Amino acid sequence: MDLAEAVLSGNRLALSRLLTQVENDTPEGRAALDALFPHTGRAHLVGVTGSPGTGKSSLVNQLARILRRSELAGRSIRRQDDSGALPRVAIVAVDPSSPFTGGALLGDRVRMRDLSGDPDVFIRSMASRGALGGLARSTAGVTQVLDAAGFDLILIETVGAGQAEVDIARLAHTTVVVEAPGMGDDIQAIKAGILEIADILVVNKADRPGVESTERALRAMLELAEPGRKTPGKPGWQIPVLRTIANNGEGAERLVEVVLSHARHLHETGGWQERELARMEDHLRRLIQVGLVERWQAHTPEERYTQALQSVLERRLSPFEAAARLIEGAG
Amino acid sequence: MDLAEAVLSGNRLALSRLLTQVENDTPEGRAALDALFPHTGRAHLVGVTGSPGTGKSSLVNQLARILRRSELAGRSIRRQDDSGALPRVAIVAVDPSSPFTGGALLGDRVRMRDLSGDPDVFIRSMASRGALGGLARSTAGVTQVLDAAGFDLILIETVGAGQAEVDIARLAHTTVVVEAPGMGDDIQAIKAGILEIADILVVNKADRPGVESTERALRAMLELAEPGRKTPGKPGWQIPVLRTIANNGEGAERLVEVVLSHARHLHETGGWQERELARMEDHLRRLIQVGLVERWQAHTPEERYTQALQSVLERRLSPFEAAARLIEGAG
Repeated sequence: MDLAEAVLSGNRLALSRLLTQVENDTPEGRAALDALFPHTGRAHLVGVTGSPGTGKSSLVNQLARILRRSELAGRSIRRQDDSGALPRVAIVAVDPSSPFTGGALLGDRVRMRDLSGDPDVFIRSMASRGALGGLARSTAGVTQVLDAAGFDLILIETVGAGQAEVDIARLAHTTVVVEAPGMGDDIQAIKAGILEIADILVVNKADRPGVESTERALRAMLELAEPGRKTPGKPGWQIPVLRTIANNGEGAERLVEVVLSHARHLHETGGWQERELARMEDHLRRLIQVGLVERWQAHTPEERYTQALQSVLERRLSPFEAAARLIEGAG
Repeated sequence: MDLAEAVLSGNRLALSRLLTQVENDTPEGRAALDALFPHTGRAHLVGVTGSPGTGKSSLVNQLARILRRSELAGRSIRRQDDSGALPRVAIVAVDPSSPFTGGALLGDRVRMRDLSGDPDVFIRSMASRGALGGLARSTAGVTQVLDAAGFDLILIETVGAGQAEVDIARLAHTTVVVEAPGMGDDIQAIKAGILEIADILVVNKADRPGVESTERALRAMLELAEPGRKTPGKPGWQIPVLRTIANNGEGAERLVEVVLSHARHLHETGGWQERELARMEDHLRRLIQVGLVERWQAHTPEERYTQALQSVLERRLSPFEAAARLIEGAG
């Protein structure tokens, strides 16, 4: 049985192995992604992003725990296959600023203690691989594998507030942006770009002083940003501002409800299809870009590249001129 | 007189105009960059990065002020042309998470008040343009123009702690990473990836409680990270941890001295050449990537692309298969 089949049959070890292949962008990983792709398209992807220190990881753990708690099973949290079972939950923790896995692994171990023993929860940490959209690309691959493996909700957690987070948020159907009191009060911390991608805003650590002013600042920014919304699937959705205390779980249940209600909203309004289109278009463009560079590299002798670079360093060629020559030369 | 010539002759209005052309990646902008490129290679680029709320902007303003203060002119802060004049300083404030210029412009106005009236200080704010390394590419172009225009020190300020910042830091000769007490204390906030790119660490807002523990955490991380340094030009340079209070200028003069001493270190050890090579290689790779995509787009009818995307959405083709077909089809 190959890796893709093993993953479809629920083999967790095979799943871990395949995710490593996908992260490393190996030929085996690509082949398995091809084989699994027809089985994707069912999972709901939830992006959770925010600055360091806002308590995102604890909040994501709380969400997973609540989604797997049976007393809520009577409500809307059900698997889509109408089996009546609780949804299967995967957590993908992405740390674009770390080229190491050390930090991520440490976080994993802390998480494992909380959620371990539940075969329908899967946790994966990813650190930066390569440059130029490499992380967004491999995160897309990882979520496809988890989707095909039958996880109903995939929580994608990203650290920071830069372009990488915006790119990764584009992968999600529902994006939750987390702030905390005392961090979000100055102009810089509340990023127009981050609000642009938010479907749900959360003020975590809501037991800390300053929660009112953070919330007020977020609401003010929302009113300012409203006219310019570009993200597909937004019409008709009022972005809520919720308070949570991830440490004791306060507000987390309400957040789960709002996430699920956003998922329903997307399905009812056609926003789901719009996001799928945007997601796939983004992914396809990245793959084309990578494919073009790979083909170019295969056709360009290292020596030609080195010579052109040397000419640039000596200011005999401008970077544009060097790039144009190298591209033409590759036929 | 064309834009490039006007910039070389010191015309500030032409400089502003050309920077806009470069940011928008127009044909005029590219032509002017080609013309100006032989005049580049003299400026020292200083990247200043850190999380929101660390007070980077105030610190950068202080650095510019000190560099332009005559009482320091007797020391090492001189123009490289031995004219005895103070160095000309440019500030490039990059905000990768903001697709708007609103916030950036507000910041500009605050800065202008402090530094206006000095013709040898130039301030430029940049917001995100396009995706996939677009910002790093246009920042490279902007610094090339400022370099050719005769600015000796270019301070590149970036917000956040993600891949975009790491990309932009690669543009700099000296990278200053700014932390603040109470933000850098948890594991998440002190990013291995950010330490990896740092030449100088600064704990700003050093009058706040917790400064000792932030400093201790940074030193501990430095010791851990030391074996794995990948950035070229590091050997022999002990990364210092400095304290500053940007609001009243405390420690800023010392920071200027350390920046200049790092610049000297790079020149003395050959680290400068290594960084120039890495910078140019990075820039050239980006331009090749963009050039390849542009050529592909010119050869691929929109309809072929739309059909392939539709097949992916219907799960009849995997994204890899679709990308491969679209690339092959373009010849």
